Formats: sequence, structure tokens, C-alpha cells
Amino acid sequence: MNDIAPLRLAIVGLGTVGGGVIRLLEENGALVARRAGRAIEVVAISARDRGKDRGVDLSHYEWVDDMASLPSRADIDVVVELIGGADGPALTLARQCLTLGKPFVTANKAMIAHHGLDLAHQAEKSGVALKYEAAVAGGIPVIKGLREGAAANRIKRVYGILNGTCNYILSTMEREGKAFSDVLADAQRLGYAEADPTFDIDGIDAAHKLSILSSLSFGTEIDFPSVDITGIRHVLAADIREAAALGFKVRLVALAECEAEGGRNIGLFQRVHPMLVPVDHPLAHVDGALNAVVAEGNFVGRLFFQGAGAGEGPTASAVVADIIDVARDEYGPAFAMPAEWLQRQVKADAGQRTGRAYMRFRVKDRPGVLAEITAAMRDANVSIESVIQRAAVEDEGALVALVTHQGALACIDDVLRRLGGSDSLVDTPMVMHILD
Amino acid sequence: MNDIAPLRLAIVGLGTVGGGVIRLLEENGALVARRAGRAIEVVAISARDRGKDRGVDLSHYEWVDDMASLPSRADIDVVVELIGGADGPALTLARQCLTLGKPFVTANKAMIAHHGLDLAHQAEKSGVALKYEAAVAGGIPVIKGLREGAAANRIKRVYGILNGTCNYILSTMEREGKAFSDVLADAQRLGYAEADPTFDIDGIDAAHKLSILSSLSFGTEIDFPSVDITGIRHVLAADIREAAALGFKVRLVALAECEAEGGRNIGLFQRVHPMLVPVDHPLAHVDGALNAVVAEGNFVGRLFFQGAGAGEGPTASAVVADIIDVARDEYGPAFAMPAEWLQRQVKADAGQRTGRAYMRFRVKDRPGVLAEITAAMRDANVSIESVIQRAAVEDEGALVALVTHQGALACIDDVLRRLGGSDSLVDTPMVMHILD
Repeated sequence: MNDIAPLRLAIVGLGTVGGGVIRLLEENGALVARRAGRAIEVVAISARDRGKDRGVDLSHYEWVDDMASLPSRADIDVVVELIGGADGPALTLARQCLTLGKPFVTANKAMIAHHGLDLAHQAEKSGVALKYEAAVAGGIPVIKGLREGAAANRIKRVYGILNGTCNYILSTMEREGKAFSDVLADAQRLGYAEADPTFDIDGIDAAHKLSILSSLSFGTEIDFPSVDITGIRHVLAADIREAAALGFKVRLVALAECEAEGGRNIGLFQRVHPMLVPVDHPLAHVDGALNAVVAEGNFVGRLFFQGAGAGEGPTASAVVADIIDVARDEYGPAFAMPAEWLQRQVKADAGQRTGRAYMRFRVKDRPGVLAEITAAMRDANVSIESVIQRAAVEDEGALVALVTHQGALACIDDVLRRLGGSDSLVDTPMVMHILD
Repeated sequence: MNDIAPLRLAIVGLGTVGGGVIRLLEENGALVARRAGRAIEVVAISARDRGKDRGVDLSHYEWVDDMASLPSRADIDVVVELIGGADGPALTLARQCLTLGKPFVTANKAMIAHHGLDLAHQAEKSGVALKYEAAVAGGIPVIKGLREGAAANRIKRVYGILNGTCNYILSTMEREGKAFSDVLADAQRLGYAEADPTFDIDGIDAAHKLSILSSLSFGTEIDFPSVDITGIRHVLAADIREAAALGFKVRLVALAECEAEGGRNIGLFQRVHPMLVPVDHPLAHVDGALNAVVAEGNFVGRLFFQGAGAGEGPTASAVVADIIDVARDEYGPAFAMPAEWLQRQVKADAGQRTGRAYMRFRVKDRPGVLAEITAAMRDANVSIESVIQRAAVEDEGALVALVTHQGALACIDDVLRRLGGSDSLVDTPMVMHILD
């Protein structure tokens, strides 16, 4: 091992993940060196605030105030960016590194979702690695699983649970029967949710990750803006209860599908939204802050990956896996094929999709309401598979919940339009598609 | 893509998997070429019997009768071995290829379990790839997952469901309440089990795969002979029923753990045997012919991979993933580190292990039997967590099934010794450890 020079790192960003990477390299250093074929050394560290107490002794690493000096340093082989944020210093650093031919490892999903294609072009031009395993599903090696493990397959669909905060909230609501806002407040107190939880609970974080998985799966250019996003704010404890009675769990599912016609891709469908998952589907057993990804390939069938989607240890594990790939010189184009071969894909027309859906109405407790809803369903040509009506429970009001038969999902929108003006409804109905 | 020469393959062995690889390369060829960065061409094929109808048109591939001529051919870049068998022609071919410096891809678990270390030494000496993703868990990229995805971790345990035939039989017994022999006969008729099912149902196939996962996980030399193996022949439908009543499923689990003391490995524990899996553990939801692998890393936590463990499509998917790695020039030492760094590990003393166990006794239906069993448990210092006694059901006889508290598993053997001569027992008691 001694005849190969160590791989020298600069680590930029010393929050939870940065601290985790340093701790991992200290604790597992000998093992990592055996697997990487060479020692891995941290030669420089940088972050915004040098004075901050990070609970880890950093005194034996060279502190660098000006991170812009790192990309050009000859004694640094790889820059590891753990600052976060789509733009700003992370992006500036990435561009500097890749332009100057410095391999770049990042955990930054927002930056990859927004600028991954440009960065990949630059990395290829310079002939250096751009690695981002930790950007999707934390410790689960799903980038590698899609880029390499499933590389022989045409991927039909890729989907999963990509946000641990939402999954923690939904599975806690399920277990404790509590309302969304109460569970969110608990999660914030326990550190499972940020003080500003918007990115997580409104589905943006999951959408960043989905757009990356899409590109890898379908060989398309990353297209974050075309992801349709609905978060979990409007899921009631009652929805979870009724879903359970109908044989489903509620999960925030990120799903992408490349629609094909005669072997040609004709449109990319990408959506993050709460869905009903049948209880016998592997995603139904993904509880708490876990993440999971399913890829359906035309030869391999259904591949399922599950693990910790966030946190110091798992994220550090993914970052260091990337570093080991660079140390082994086992890396290639960031998105599985040269960036210029990625295809630009139009957004699929969601109105053409078929499936089953769950609809829930909060209604006034008076005669004729169920007749009004079912008439709207009939007029919109939506066929009902099962229906539950419950008398008012606490402050949730009376509920009508139903599951439709397989059909055109556009007709569901028609039901909502027909019921739009009705004063039988207390608020906007909830629609969740069913994962089939 | 046109400026890089195609990667030229010889495929040896044209059974289910060989046919699948050819079909995959024909059907997904353009996509595979984009991901591999170059076209992949089959230039020669070989198998024992040229005349056999394989249901696929092979007339446009060059047929080679003498496979020994392939390793030295300059117009072949990779030899893909899909013959099977630990020794014999597969091994001869592997040795020829690796000695002559020809990259070698195989799906042959028996050969890798028995000769993988030697072959890895030879591959490294010649500086060529030795790849075997399809040898373990079919289409699931678990070799890659451990070798690369989890590479930053000290793996504490690796375990899983590695034999689809056994899992199919156990989950069918569970669903239909049928006896082992009846389900096996059905499985043979349906093609889920071989005419001679010994390798599968006696756990040997799973043990081959486990020995490979151990080596990758712990950095140890493959040690197949030290795997303790018990198959599923003696599992009764009643065991599955009682296990369910106690909150468990019965699965054939292959489990390896490298026991450490003060950071040093002191022994390798490898066992394949039917176990009780708590219903809330991910392995409890692995039904039918699926495979699954769990790796527990010191940073990543619990990683779970699930998918099809056998069959034409999934196995071909794994073989071609390896071929793509070779085409990309992204490969390294076969067992994650140079073969000379792998450590020889003594077999751990299983008698030192602790845990919970399920014990089932078929007993004569007469007074005092339960007292006799519980006295033996007390004398052996085994504490009982729960017990079920059932009157005789059909031809299974009266049953006593129980679950012990956490304790030294060696004491379970003591219970069996104490009850050894008892004429209250109809046959040998069944012991299954509990996965905790």
C-alpha cells in the first residue's frame, strides 16, 4: 500500500455531514485505505465560521479561510463540498474545481438538480470526476445502483421515498393518530425537522432528488422545473386512517416514468406527491426516517433499496464511498453516459395517465351529500371501487373517503370541477393517486 | 461513440443465463452502448451441445466447439462463463483466461466460493478484471453494493435470503399450510426447483453465496468450508404456524459476522440455517423467489437490498452490468482489495454466541411431557419467553413450541442433550435461532 501516494482532500463545509466525514476517516481510516488501495488524507478544511464549536477536534487540520484558494492547490487531489445550497459559494467552488480540473465530490442535491448538467459537461471537458452519491437517499448507494448496477436495463419507472422528514411525520401520524401540525411541531423539537421545514414538507427536497434519479434512469437531461410537486401539509390523520381501512399506507412518493411509444421516449413524467401504497408493497414497510428507492428494469424486474436517508453517519458513508471511487480511479461520466448524449425530454402530459385514486371530502353533516358526490363521479365517468362515510369525529368534520377503479386520472379533475361550487363541502377535497 | 472500439465478447454456456445475456444485448444493445461508452459485441459462442434447441436464433454468431481456443484469441476482449460448476470446464476456462490476461466475467457462485481467492490472485497478477456480480442474489447489485457502495464502513454483520427456491418453498408453506415435501413436489413441477434439489434445499447454494459476501464485507479470505449449513428439510408447516402465532416468519437466513475484540477480528462466524425473523424486520416481507441482503455498517447503519435472485432476465442484467464495468474500465480487485491483503480468519466459536431461539418438540400426547421439557430447560439454565402447546393436528402429532429469552445459545444444545434419551419425544426436536 505504501507505494501509492495518498489521496489528499480538502473538506469544505463542516456541519453535520462534514464532521461525519472527518470522523469516519479517522475511525475507519485503515480499512478505507485497504479498500481504496491508498491512504486518504484530509489536508485542508474550510467553513464559514472558524470559531464555531463543532464537537470534534479539528486543530490538526490546516484551516483555510478562503475556499477559493483550494481548487488551484497542487497539494489537494479532491475537493469535497458539504456546504449545501443550489447556488452561492457551493456552485462557485464547483465551477472553479471542475474548470481547473480538480475532482469534486458533493452531497448537494439542490445544486446537482439545478446545475448538474452544466457541471457534468465541465467535468467531462476537464476529464475529472464529479461524484454525488450522498445527494440522493443518504447512505443508500442508489446512484451507483442505477448508474452501474442496473446499467444493462431500460428503466421503466423509478420511484421511492426520498425525504426522511416527511416519512417520519407520516408514519408518526399513522402510529399515533395525531394531526400533521402536532407531529411536525414534535419533529422540530426532536430535531427531525428544520425550523423552516418548507423544503422538506412541501416536497421540494424530494423533487431535487427525483430529478437526479430520472436523469440517471432514463438517460435524459436533469429537468427539475418540470417536476410536479405536492407536499404533505394537507394530509389528515383521517386520510391515513381511512387509507388503512382500505388496505393502504400514505407515503410521500417521488415517481418518474419515461413514456415510450414504439421504443422512442415521448415524454418524461415526474411527480412528488402523497400517494396510497398497498400494504403488500415494499414501500409500505418503510417507516420513520428511512428512505427507499425502487427501480423497475426490463430485465432485472423490481429492484428495491432501503436505508437511512439522512444523518451524519449514513451521509458520510456515501461521501466517502465516492472518495474511494476517485481513489480507485473507478469513475466515469456523472450521469452514466457523456453529458452530450443525455436527451432533452418534453414533459409528459399527465392528463393521459390512468390509475386508481383516493378521494376524500370533508362534508357538512346533512342529507344528500353522498348523493351529490356520487352523482358528480358518475357524470365525470369515474367508477367507485369502495367508499367509506364517517360521522363527524372531533374537529375533522364528517368525511367521505373513496377509492376509484382504474381509469383516466383526468376524470378525477373533472369530479373536482363539478363539485367546485358546492356548499356541501367544508374545504378542498384531497386526492391521492394509488401506487399500482 | 464511434471512435471507441467495441468490446468483443465470447459467451461460453448457453443455458437460461447465456440465452438471457444474448437476448439482453440484442434488445437493449443501443442503450447498453450509451452507458458503456462503446458498443458491446458478441463475437463467439460456445456450449457443450451445438444441436440443442435454445429457443433463440444463434445462427449469426460464430460457434466455437473448443472453448479452450477462446482465451488466446486476440479478437476477443472478455470471456463470459455461464457453464456453472465449481470445477471442471468452468474452472479450466477461468484459469486459462486469467493466466493469459483475458478479462473474465462469470455467474458461477460455486467456483467463486471454492476458487475465488486463487482466481483473484491470478487476475491481479495479470492485471485483468475478474467479475462475478451474478453469482450472488441474481439481479440485485449486492457485490457492487458491498464492494463499493458500503466501502467506507466496517461491516458488522451481513445476512440475507440468498436462495429463491427455499424462500419460495417456505413462503408457499406459510401461505398454503402445506407440508415441505408437497410444496417441493409442486415447485419441481413448476420449474422453481431442480429435479435434484439438494444444493438448494440443503443450503449449499446459499452457503456458497454467503462465503463470497463474507469476504467482501470483512476483508477476509473466502472460507466456504467453515460455513455451518442446515437446510429446510425438517421445517414443518406447524413450525411456520407456531412461529406466526409468536410473531415471526421462518426464512432460510445466511448470516456472517466477524467477531472483533479491541478493533481486531478474532473469528468469522458464517451460518446458513432456517431462522425466525420478527414480522417487523424487512426480511419478513421477502416472499416467493425473491432474494434480499442486509449489510450493517458502522456508519451507514442498516442497508437493505431486495430483488429477483435468479431467472434469465435478472441474472443476465447482473452479467451485463459486469461487462459494462469492464467496458468502462471501472473495475478493481475482485474482493474490494488486493487478494494478498485479505486476512485468513479462524472460525468463530459458535458456542460463545448469545440470542433467542425457537424450540419445537413433537411429543407423545400424555401427562407430564411439558413438565419434562420445562425441567430440562430449567436445568440447562434456559429461560422461556413464551410457550405454545397444541393437541395433535392430523399427522403432525402433539406439539410443544417455545421461544427462549436472550441467553447463551450453547445452553440450547444442553437442553437437547438432557432430553436425548426421552421416550416422550416422537423425533428430534427442531431448533431455530431468532434474528434479532
